[in-house]
Amino acid sequence: MIHTLAVVGATGAVGKIVLEEIQQQGLAFQKLKLLASERSAGKSLKMAGRDVQVELLQPDAFNDVDLVIASTPDEVAAQCVPWAVERGAIVVDESAYFRMMPSVPLVVPEVNPQAIADHQGIIASPNCSTTQMVVALKPLMDAAGLRRVVVSTYQAVSGAGLAAQQELLSNTRAALEGSSPQPSMFPYDIALNLIPQIGSPKQDGFTSEEMKMVYETHKILGDDKIQVNATCVRVPVLVGHSESIYCETDRPLGLDEIRELFRAAPGITLVDDLQNKQYPMPRDSAHKPDVFIGRIRKDRDIPTGISFWCVSDNLRKGAATNAVQIAKLLCNDSNFQAASAGQGRAGR
Amino acid sequence: MIHTLAVVGATGAVGKIVLEEIQQQGLAFQKLKLLASERSAGKSLKMAGRDVQVELLQPDAFNDVDLVIASTPDEVAAQCVPWAVERGAIVVDESAYFRMMPSVPLVVPEVNPQAIADHQGIIASPNCSTTQMVVALKPLMDAAGLRRVVVSTYQAVSGAGLAAQQELLSNTRAALEGSSPQPSMFPYDIALNLIPQIGSPKQDGFTSEEMKMVYETHKILGDDKIQVNATCVRVPVLVGHSESIYCETDRPLGLDEIRELFRAAPGITLVDDLQNKQYPMPRDSAHKPDVFIGRIRKDRDIPTGISFWCVSDNLRKGAATNAVQIAKLLCNDSNFQAASAGQGRAGR
Repeated sequence: MIHTLAVVGATGAVGKIVLEEIQQQGLAFQKLKLLASERSAGKSLKMAGRDVQVELLQPDAFNDVDLVIASTPDEVAAQCVPWAVERGAIVVDESAYFRMMPSVPLVVPEVNPQAIADHQGIIASPNCSTTQMVVALKPLMDAAGLRRVVVSTYQAVSGAGLAAQQELLSNTRAALEGSSPQPSMFPYDIALNLIPQIGSPKQDGFTSEEMKMVYETHKILGDDKIQVNATCVRVPVLVGHSESIYCETDRPLGLDEIRELFRAAPGITLVDDLQNKQYPMPRDSAHKPDVFIGRIRKDRDIPTGISFWCVSDNLRKGAATNAVQIAKLLCNDSNFQAASAGQGRAGR
Repeated sequence: MIHTLAVVGATGAVGKIVLEEIQQQGLAFQKLKLLASERSAGKSLKMAGRDVQVELLQPDAFNDVDLVIASTPDEVAAQCVPWAVERGAIVVDESAYFRMMPSVPLVVPEVNPQAIADHQGIIASPNCSTTQMVVALKPLMDAAGLRRVVVSTYQAVSGAGLAAQQELLSNTRAALEGSSPQPSMFPYDIALNLIPQIGSPKQDGFTSEEMKMVYETHKILGDDKIQVNATCVRVPVLVGHSESIYCETDRPLGLDEIRELFRAAPGITLVDDLQNKQYPMPRDSAHKPDVFIGRIRKDRDIPTGISFWCVSDNLRKGAATNAVQIAKLLCNDSNFQAASAGQGRAGR
C-alpha cells in the first residue's frame, strides 16, 4: 500500500487514463495528489466517485509523496522529476527525458520486470511504439533468440496529445468540405493523408521516433546487437498504433509454435484468422490494455524470418497502462514496502 | 498512329484517367471507341472537347480495332480480352487475369520495355503496388543487384474503385458524427481505421495482394530469386499508395550514390530532405504521373540494406498512366506500325 501517490500531468490525454488504470489495476494508496501546470491547477477531477482538486506542480508539492506517476512532456519531466526524487519519492516517468540514462531502468513489466530492482529513484516507461513491439518480440526472443527487426509503424495522432486528436477531427471535417486548413500540431494536414515523419531529424536520416525504437528496444531486451530498422509514419487514426513487424530469430520457429508463444505470453491477445477476416485493427484495439497480434506469417525464403501485425492503444499499454503496471510492480517490491512504511527510506 | 483505339471500362475510376492520359501523353489515333458494360453503355463522355458515346462491350465491338486499353475487373477481362485478340487487336490489359501467364508480357515501361516484343496479343500492366515498387527498385538493381525486399504498404481506398472512395467519405462523415455504418466495399469500416487485408487469403497466411507483389516483381525484374516479403494494409486515404520499402542489394551503395540513382531514373521524382520536412505524401502525389521517393536511409547494421518511402498515384502510374505508356511503346514498335497499316496483321 502506497501512503501518498502523486499523479503529474493528471489533466492530459495520458494522465486521465492513468487515473482510470489506477482504479482498474487496483493500485492501492491512502492519499492521492493530482498535480498539473498553472493552466490546469485548481481544476477538479473525479477519482473513484470523489472530486480531487488539481494542485500546482511545484517542488514542495512532492513533500511526503511516496510514489509519483508522471505523464508530461520531456522538458517538464526534466524539471519536476528531480524535485520528487530529492524529496525521497520514487518516480515512474513516461517522458523520454530519463529513459536512456544508465542509472534509470526502462521497464515493460511483461518483458524486464527485474530491471526495477536497480532504480535510483526514477523508473522510465518507454515510448509507445517501442512498448508494444517489445511485448511482441519478447516471447520469440526467449524461445529462439532475436537477431533483427524491420518495423514500419502506422501511428495514431493521439501520440501527439489531445490537441492533435482535435486537429485530426477538425481537419477531416474541413477535408470533407473541400478545404485544407493550416495544421498546428503536425507539419502537414493529416486528414486523409500520411506523414512519414514522427519526431525530429536525427543521425543518418532517421527521426527521433525511429531511433527511440532502436535504443529503447536494445535497453529493454538487454541486447544492443539486435539490428533494428524502423520507419515511423503518422496515419489519420485517433487512437491505436499499428506496426508491420518483420523479425529474424536465431533459430527457426514453426508457425504453430509462434502462435502458441504469442498465445501464452502475458499482455498479448492473438487475433489471427485471415480466412475469417480476423486481425487486429486500431478501431477494435483502442481503449483496451493489451497488445493485439495477427497476420502471422513465416518468411517464404528465410527460415528464421517472421512477419506479423501488431496493434495496441498507444495511450494505454503505450503509456498509462504500462506506467501503472510499473507502479504495481514497485508496490510488490519488498524494498519499496519497507521504505513506504518509513523504516528505511532515504531523504526523509 | 493507331487507326482505331478502344478504351474498355471507360466510365470507371481508372478508365476516366486513361482518357486523360491518352491526351496528355499524346497517344495518336484516328478513331476512338469507348466500351463499357450495359450499365454505362449509351452514356456520353468528353474526349478532346468532343462527345463520344459509350458503346456496349460485346464481341463485335472489337471489329476493326487495332489497339485496346482495358481497365476492368478480372472476370470482365477474362471474357472480353479474348474477343479483341481473336479479332486481331492488341490489348493492354490492366486486370490481374492474364498477368502471370508465360505468354503475356507484364510491362512497366521504365523497367522492362523490351518485354513487349514477345507479346501474343496481350500485354499486361501490373498491380498498382507492384508498379511503383519496381520503378523504385530498378535503378538500385541495375547498379548493385537486388537480393531481397521487405515492404509494408499504406494503400488508398481508390484501389477498390469509385464506390470505395465514396464509402471512405460517407463513413468518415458518419464517424465524425459518432456512428459507424455497415461497410460494403471493405470488410470493416475504414474511416479513421486501418484494415490489414487487401485481397483474399492465399498460401501461408499471405493475401492475394501480397503474393502479387512477390510474383509480379519476379516477372517484371526477371529474377525469381529476389526475396520479397510484403504486408499490404488499407489506410483511410483517397488516392495515392505509400510503401515503406526495405531492400538489400548485392553490393553496398553509398547514400549519395542511391540519391543520384533515383534522381537519374525515369519516372522517379526525389523528395528527400528530412531537415526541411520534405518527403512524399499521398496528398501531394495524387494526380501526378510520377513515383515519388524520400526518407532514404542506409541500414545502420547491414551495409547492403536501404530503407525508403515511396508514394505514387495508384490510379495513374499504378494503372492508367502505365497502361497508356505501354500503348505508346507499342506504337513506336515497328511490328505494330506495320500491322496497323494493314500490311501484316493476322486475323483480318
